[in-house]
Amino acid sequence: MKTPAFLDSIDSQLDWQRAVYKDLHRHPEVSLAEHKTAERIESELTGLGLDVKRIGCTGRVTVIENGEGPTVLARADIDALPVTEDTRLDFASEVDGVMHACGHDMHAAALLGAVRLLNENRDAWSGTYIALFQPAEENAAGAKAMIDDGLTDKVPTPDVALAQHVMPLSAGKIFTAAGPVMSAGDSVKITIFGRGAHGSMPHLSVDPVVLAASIVLRLQTIVSRETEPGEFAVVTVGASNAGSKSNIIPDRAELLLNVRTYDTAVRKRVIASIERIVRGECEAAGTPKEPTFEYFDQFPLTDNSETVNETVTEALTEFFGAGAVLEATPATASEDFSELPNAFGIPYTYWFVGSFDAEKYQAAEEAGTVITNVPANHSPFFAPVIEPTLEIATKAQVVGALSYLGG
Amino acid sequence: MKTPAFLDSIDSQLDWQRAVYKDLHRHPEVSLAEHKTAERIESELTGLGLDVKRIGCTGRVTVIENGEGPTVLARADIDALPVTEDTRLDFASEVDGVMHACGHDMHAAALLGAVRLLNENRDAWSGTYIALFQPAEENAAGAKAMIDDGLTDKVPTPDVALAQHVMPLSAGKIFTAAGPVMSAGDSVKITIFGRGAHGSMPHLSVDPVVLAASIVLRLQTIVSRETEPGEFAVVTVGASNAGSKSNIIPDRAELLLNVRTYDTAVRKRVIASIERIVRGECEAAGTPKEPTFEYFDQFPLTDNSETVNETVTEALTEFFGAGAVLEATPATASEDFSELPNAFGIPYTYWFVGSFDAEKYQAAEEAGTVITNVPANHSPFFAPVIEPTLEIATKAQVVGALSYLGG
Amino acid sequence: MKTPAFLDSIDSQLDWQRAVYKDLHRHPEVSLAEHKTAERIESELTGLGLDVKRIGCTGRVTVIENGEGPTVLARADIDALPVTEDTRLDFASEVDGVMHACGHDMHAAALLGAVRLLNENRDAWSGTYIALFQPAEENAAGAKAMIDDGLTDKVPTPDVALAQHVMPLSAGKIFTAAGPVMSAGDSVKITIFGRGAHGSMPHLSVDPVVLAASIVLRLQTIVSRETEPGEFAVVTVGASNAGSKSNIIPDRAELLLNVRTYDTAVRKRVIASIERIVRGECEAAGTPKEPTFEYFDQFPLTDNSETVNETVTEALTEFFGAGAVLEATPATASEDFSELPNAFGIPYTYWFVGSFDAEKYQAAEEAGTVITNVPANHSPFFAPVIEPTLEIATKAQVVGALSYLGG
Amino acid sequence: MKTPAFLDSIDSQLDWQRAVYKDLHRHPEVSLAEHKTAERIESELTGLGLDVKRIGCTGRVTVIENGEGPTVLARADIDALPVTEDTRLDFASEVDGVMHACGHDMHAAALLGAVRLLNENRDAWSGTYIALFQPAEENAAGAKAMIDDGLTDKVPTPDVALAQHVMPLSAGKIFTAAGPVMSAGDSVKITIFGRGAHGSMPHLSVDPVVLAASIVLRLQTIVSRETEPGEFAVVTVGASNAGSKSNIIPDRAELLLNVRTYDTAVRKRVIASIERIVRGECEAAGTPKEPTFEYFDQFPLTDNSETVNETVTEALTEFFGAGAVLEATPATASEDFSELPNAFGIPYTYWFVGSFDAEKYQAAEEAGTVITNVPANHSPFFAPVIEPTLEIATKAQVVGALSYLGG
Repeated sequence: MKTPAFLDSIDSQLDWQRAVYKDLHRHPEVSLAEHKTAERIESELTGLGLDVKRIGCTGRVTVIENGEGPTVLARADIDALPVTEDTRLDFASEVDGVMHACGHDMHAAALLGAVRLLNENRDAWSGTYIALFQPAEENAAGAKAMIDDGLTDKVPTPDVALAQHVMPLSAGKIFTAAGPVMSAGDSVKITIFGRGAHGSMPHLSVDPVVLAASIVLRLQTIVSRETEPGEFAVVTVGASNAGSKSNIIPDRAELLLNVRTYDTAVRKRVIASIERIVRGECEAAGTPKEPTFEYFDQFPLTDNSETVNETVTEALTEFFGAGAVLEATPATASEDFSELPNAFGIPYTYWFVGSFDAEKYQAAEEAGTVITNVPANHSPFFAPVIEPTLEIATKAQVVGALSYLGG
Repeated sequence: MKTPAFLDSIDSQLDWQRAVYKDLHRHPEVSLAEHKTAERIESELTGLGLDVKRIGCTGRVTVIENGEGPTVLARADIDALPVTEDTRLDFASEVDGVMHACGHDMHAAALLGAVRLLNENRDAWSGTYIALFQPAEENAAGAKAMIDDGLTDKVPTPDVALAQHVMPLSAGKIFTAAGPVMSAGDSVKITIFGRGAHGSMPHLSVDPVVLAASIVLRLQTIVSRETEPGEFAVVTVGASNAGSKSNIIPDRAELLLNVRTYDTAVRKRVIASIERIVRGECEAAGTPKEPTFEYFDQFPLTDNSETVNETVTEALTEFFGAGAVLEATPATASEDFSELPNAFGIPYTYWFVGSFDAEKYQAAEEAGTVITNVPANHSPFFAPVIEPTLEIATKAQVVGALSYLGG
Repeated sequence: MKTPAFLDSIDSQLDWQRAVYKDLHRHPEVSLAEHKTAERIESELTGLGLDVKRIGCTGRVTVIENGEGPTVLARADIDALPVTEDTRLDFASEVDGVMHACGHDMHAAALLGAVRLLNENRDAWSGTYIALFQPAEENAAGAKAMIDDGLTDKVPTPDVALAQHVMPLSAGKIFTAAGPVMSAGDSVKITIFGRGAHGSMPHLSVDPVVLAASIVLRLQTIVSRETEPGEFAVVTVGASNAGSKSNIIPDRAELLLNVRTYDTAVRKRVIASIERIVRGECEAAGTPKEPTFEYFDQFPLTDNSETVNETVTEALTEFFGAGAVLEATPATASEDFSELPNAFGIPYTYWFVGSFDAEKYQAAEEAGTVITNVPANHSPFFAPVIEPTLEIATKAQVVGALSYLGG
Repeated sequence: MKTPAFLDSIDSQLDWQRAVYKDLHRHPEVSLAEHKTAERIESELTGLGLDVKRIGCTGRVTVIENGEGPTVLARADIDALPVTEDTRLDFASEVDGVMHACGHDMHAAALLGAVRLLNENRDAWSGTYIALFQPAEENAAGAKAMIDDGLTDKVPTPDVALAQHVMPLSAGKIFTAAGPVMSAGDSVKITIFGRGAHGSMPHLSVDPVVLAASIVLRLQTIVSRETEPGEFAVVTVGASNAGSKSNIIPDRAELLLNVRTYDTAVRKRVIASIERIVRGECEAAGTPKEPTFEYFDQFPLTDNSETVNETVTEALTEFFGAGAVLEATPATASEDFSELPNAFGIPYTYWFVGSFDAEKYQAAEEAGTVITNVPANHSPFFAPVIEPTLEIATKAQVVGALSYLGG
């Protein structure tokens, strides 16, 4: 790979990138409602002289065909969250109750910057570059929407796919690893059916409050007893709700579970165990009706290809220096990015971009791990530092792409 | 006691009582909002030439002083419930979502009838008769409101207090017993405080969902292990609510409990055990903050005086015949009536009036107990038969009063 | 019934009864090993000139046919318990680890006395008297053994059956009631099968320790939620045992349960619920093998006939005086006596004989209930006072019998 | 490091090593009773002309001082297990109920062989070699016993310590890794105190069976909720025992727990959580007495020094070839070896020696992990293959030592 000297020209476009970033941050839109966001992205891309495809509701894709060579797909997600911002930034959200609390605005602004750099320096590379702006990452619906809308037919099949995410790690650093870096995530709504009765007549009821309690305690054994010690698995009952009055035994309870795993076999086993436990407990309670299971927000495992990761990490290390590219600790959070390469059947890699003040959070750098006492993603206080994050993220996208397209 | 021959004159006033009953049924009002109900009652009493005291928001009282003799207080409750009527009666509720689903309209119409009979036949008795129309029985607030508003200073101190309730038992029958006939009822809202976290990071949380589950299971042991076998005690967790999203561990959970007991010592012990268990479980969980306990809807025990019950039951039996006055099975439901005699420090008795078609529900009569497969109190289908219930209930109030005032 | 004047002659035989009592007390024998006890009883009966039938291992029966009239069966149990005596009585047990800690020696000595009185005063009554000395009450095996050995063919069919038990109530008093006076008792050994593993490899196991814990907690809901409030039901897990080393997950757990009820329908439902809960929990755990249920020590309900109880209680009251015959509180303990009348299909009554110093335990008398702070049955300190208990118990048997045979 | 050519001379001493091995295997002795074992070892060492120190009951140490250079301590454990052998080997255990089921006989025979090779080839190395034969590894008492008996004063302070263990992995291979390779293990006996009562009178008890059940379920949350997902931690309740009769509520319950961790902070937190949960649950139950905690069999973490492991692994790889030295998966089992280097304050490394037929268990080799379907350590069927295990283990000890002493 040639050293991409043209990357120095980023200085001349950073003001523009910052303006886009702040505009997106001021006007956040939740999943599948990113209409103005998509419009702004489209407008910037067409302003660069590029064609834009609308795929999957608010998804936007531009394809730069630049001669012979591999095809690289780079993806940025663009949706915001139903969180009320509390950062006191001067470009804070102007939309009540909605906030870019996960940094997707930074992802979009960085990818736009990468597109411009590559587009304006076509002589420095050859091949095809696909920049994909994906909606609705937060509810795992956006990648699916784009695939369902014919993504794989509408763009050339890439050889590799790349994506990145800002994280509460030291700004100026990039963190990457082969293998699983983001967990698979599955949510399930479980409804259990008892028999309601007046609170003073429990013998006429099948009490779903007690049944739900027993289920919640039993579910703990999936991690504590059924999972190999040291194997990553999380079973969280995020919500357990039944009844509304003290003296009425309700007739049902609703549980919302979230499962996180790094291994497909483990994931299958955990889900099977959840169903086994819930059904067994319902039989123990003598419920009049089978429980129901509704799965939603199912995020795939983000499992970096060993070879793609090695190629990209070498390029990043060469460019940024060894001290700036560190081994990532897998995150327990989830992503729907891998749906895209999986739809094409291609390998991919995904990295984290530090976005917090390095000195302020030095301990975090030393630990090389996610910091728990700084405002993390999804917090109302989440505020990546623009400098140097935006520049680093932009260059990382370019360097990653050039590790395949740079000749 | 003289046989109260004047009771035959009830025939001439039943049409009026029925009209009042149907009007109240058509226009139900929930607890402490019984404005039109109180107005109608007041208007009927003044129409009889009686003075009316307004005590406790929508409470109304009339006092008939009729020479030497004991003082008897008779109470009817007048509030309706937030239930949508589904009886298909031609005089069904005209108020959306509100219904006289507990028969308090029948209690009020019967007490008005008793007042008229006693008022128009003053030569048949001597002493003082206090007719008290109480609001807000359903939320245990009405008796308290009247006492707080100075009831005991505003009316003569009675010697005994009487009250009755229509029940899904054979119409034409009265059911009574000495000792506890309605349970004490206590509700408590318990809030437990954990520490919230992202669903994928349980180790940063103190999970209130799991804690609530453990508390619910542990509370079962109050009845199963701490209460003497055969002793009446109910601990119902009517509601257990925590969290709203699958992937967010919430920071608190809320439990609504209802406790029923027939014995003051048992009641105290059960409540102490609830607090001990919740606090112990919170310590086991390492919660960052003490749980809170807010008590509400606290109903006293309805514990019929042995002597008053004997006096009244003998009079009822003499008047209605032995086959029509039966031993009552204590009800698991609760009442705030006893707050009134307790405020005066006087004994009382309370009886049930059958209000369902005798033949249709013959099995119930034979069992002499509350029927569970007919529409019971608080059901949208609750519909006491007017004949003979209204007449029986009216006469029962008069006969009960005359057992003290009849000379 | 004629006043049984001949009962005064008891004075001349009390020394003999005391000697028998002390001898039995000194030489206690556990269930179905009452060889010397039965020998002594047989020897005393033949000494009175009576024939003795050996029925059911160590059971003994004598039948006194005395002309026309009803047939009454009176039963005494004769076995002792595996308890080490600690009473410091001068006639304390001489057998290591075995003790008459339930007073069956008193029952036997009293019944022998009653036989002698009735035998020697045949002119005072007519009919047939069957005195039955039953082994193995403590493990519910003795009545069954006698029935299995042809009891109902070997003696005349009685009209009524009578039995009594010394209790830690005021000596000199008799306590009786119609209906259930002793609970039905059922024991069950439940074995649940998991899969063993090294303690560091829980994922290879199905952990029976956790499963047993979940079952124990779930069983609490049978009383707390499935039984009508105020209905008598006890589900005790008296033993829960699994594993022997900290670092080996065992492959099974064993639970020993005891169930007490006063109502056959409740008993059936409780047992069905136990099995439902255990099976459901095993399914929730994914056990490799079905749980097993082995029932033992199954005691029937002791449910006194209303009419027999009335007849006998009237006779006892007439003889001893109203203050000496009190209403019994049903005991939570169990008895196999009722197997005998049930085998014949006849009614029965069963009463308690106070056997503790009246003044010392006055509070108990006032409460009229079982005292919990005196050495109760099965305690190593259990020591009924001989005076007046032995005399009262003897006379009670005679009076009870004469209420039918006295003409 | 020079290639240790003298290792070929092992052929001339293998018959002797095999004889020692078989003799030890035939005469296994449990922890701290290794009298004959120690005698045999001492006799072999003195036969080689070496001095032997007796340290810590049945511990034996020989020190070979051979000029300038580093000091290396090599340790073999020598105790057997209370397991009844079922291998059908012709040199199977001749001691009833005792067996070398963990391969310590192999460790001892290999270390003796290494001592002889090093002693007879002193010109091939320089420095000090300490061969330590440690008793009582199985109950974590032996290393402590030697330290308590003054080990650190009685031998020169080593620079590094080495140890090895036969494992059910492919014979002919060595498995090693930096960092934690064996978990820390802690056992604790917890006694909780309730109040006993007759099974029919639960209200007089504080039921320890129910309390133990609640504790067992609550303990599950330490791993499921309080431990970071993917962090290794095991909390096993290997035994939970309470009561012995169905109808007696016992007055206490006993739990035996085993805890495994790979990290000191995690270990401390888990143990603190156990105590917090047990105490909180006891308060929830209202126990009359505080629970007690007795810790035993506390094994330290085996946490290989990165530098020592690298040095030794390089030497082993050079000697045996890359394919024969593989990355070890950390074992969940525990060892007390590290107590020794920890007492000296020196770094160490510990490796696994494959001891099962390579072809037969090929799948295991491919997986590079512990095999679960072959007779593993502590099984009655555990039988390492002598060829080539004994030779490999001997050479590994010599090669490991020479990586420091070889010049």
